[in-house]
Amino acid sequence: MLINGAPGNTINAEDRGLAYGDGVFRTLRMQAGLPVNWERQYAKLQQDCNALRIPCPSALVLSSELQQLGKSQAEGIAKIIITRGVSTRGYAPAAQSEATRILNITPKTAFPIEYSRQGIRAHVCKVRLAHQSLLAGIKHLNRLENVLAASELQGRDFPEGLLSDITGYVISGTRSNLFALRGNVLYTPNLTRCGVAGVQRERVMDWCKGYGVTCKVADLRIEELLQSDEIFFVNSVIGLWPVSELADYRRTQHPMAWKIQEWLNDERH
Amino acid sequence: MLINGAPGNTINAEDRGLAYGDGVFRTLRMQAGLPVNWERQYAKLQQDCNALRIPCPSALVLSSELQQLGKSQAEGIAKIIITRGVSTRGYAPAAQSEATRILNITPKTAFPIEYSRQGIRAHVCKVRLAHQSLLAGIKHLNRLENVLAASELQGRDFPEGLLSDITGYVISGTRSNLFALRGNVLYTPNLTRCGVAGVQRERVMDWCKGYGVTCKVADLRIEELLQSDEIFFVNSVIGLWPVSELADYRRTQHPMAWKIQEWLNDERH
Repeated sequence: MLINGAPGNTINAEDRGLAYGDGVFRTLRMQAGLPVNWERQYAKLQQDCNALRIPCPSALVLSSELQQLGKSQAEGIAKIIITRGVSTRGYAPAAQSEATRILNITPKTAFPIEYSRQGIRAHVCKVRLAHQSLLAGIKHLNRLENVLAASELQGRDFPEGLLSDITGYVISGTRSNLFALRGNVLYTPNLTRCGVAGVQRERVMDWCKGYGVTCKVADLRIEELLQSDEIFFVNSVIGLWPVSELADYRRTQHPMAWKIQEWLNDERH
Repeated sequence: MLINGAPGNTINAEDRGLAYGDGVFRTLRMQAGLPVNWERQYAKLQQDCNALRIPCPSALVLSSELQQLGKSQAEGIAKIIITRGVSTRGYAPAAQSEATRILNITPKTAFPIEYSRQGIRAHVCKVRLAHQSLLAGIKHLNRLENVLAASELQGRDFPEGLLSDITGYVISGTRSNLFALRGNVLYTPNLTRCGVAGVQRERVMDWCKGYGVTCKVADLRIEELLQSDEIFFVNSVIGLWPVSELADYRRTQHPMAWKIQEWLNDERH
């Protein structure tokens, strides 16, 4: 682990990342010691930092630190946390605060291969996401809703859960973005009121452009979702998981998801 | 500073308090080396821990650690953070995770005496609080909304800001609870959809019981608030600040607020 560039595994207990969740993060795959889809990952990190007015470390500093860590964990999962840094008591950020950067690589979690091929059983979470347009889309450190939602999956055979918002629109998985194929159109939920807009979601949208498939960002109700031809979750760690079972929805074949999956697995895209 | 009982000023960088804001906190006054209103403070801490299913350290452990710190900072401001502890990657809490406790005492901030007597100018914040009934009332570590709201006050002559929710009801200050006197009734906002229910709010409600003043928890719109006879903010650090100016509301006399203030300043209550 590198904390502000130095080996270590602790941070200042007065860091605003801890005090208020005042920071952002990224989770991404390493391949042969290099961060996968680095340009997209960095662009999103920078965008999230800008949204919270946290000074973002340069791409060069972060990528060279990841490569340094990648020497001993060449195929792991990297996590980057950027916080607004240390400050005195009080919510207002100090004008001159310096961001804290925390980089870590942990071994890859081995998911069953069936999750990617046959698909997964997904749980309909009870937790409903609140609407906060000022924070929507940002991968910030205020993630108690995700913690509560993930708790619903514990001890049950659901690799992922479906999250809806307080008005009943479907938004995402507990840690992934959501897509639904209906006829010839691929839908993905509108994330301007809540949710996190991930890099893998962006890649799927780029695939659509390249392959002439219409992709629509929409407000989708669960009843509409369950009438889809295909449903799948994506994120940078799991890749793409088709949904085989969700409430009364059942599918064994996922032709579109499999096609996109193959493309996503090529890290050059 | 004491981290899990040991002197230190760093925490494990994999603590869930940092990763997800997965924890709760308290800020309270120390007097003659002892925590003020300790029973109430501990009861609220325990209630918040229970709400998130975080094991709460015992009152004895926390109060003795505060007293230990109080030896060198007898009149400071204590902060207690309890997190769900260290865990591997992933939102779901580990079944066996051990809570982290972080205790710190910093010197008291000296606020101008006018704030408590003449009252303060308060800003109407643009940030609107999201509705999340699962987290409402809890003083958890997901505080980005408060950070954004407090940023609105920076560099301006507003010691506190008024926060409303997404439907337009007034909720609180950026770091305090809110009361409004209308006729013979003291109103305080309903905090079942958002906001933090503080110990000082509870004390004011107790004062009402003892002094035969009706206190109503209500959904209050800003237009109604601005027609109040008196408005004031409370928290354990500032005590009570009457509002002298808020939008087109103006007051120079705060008889009820002053009465309650005197009672609150007696730490035996």
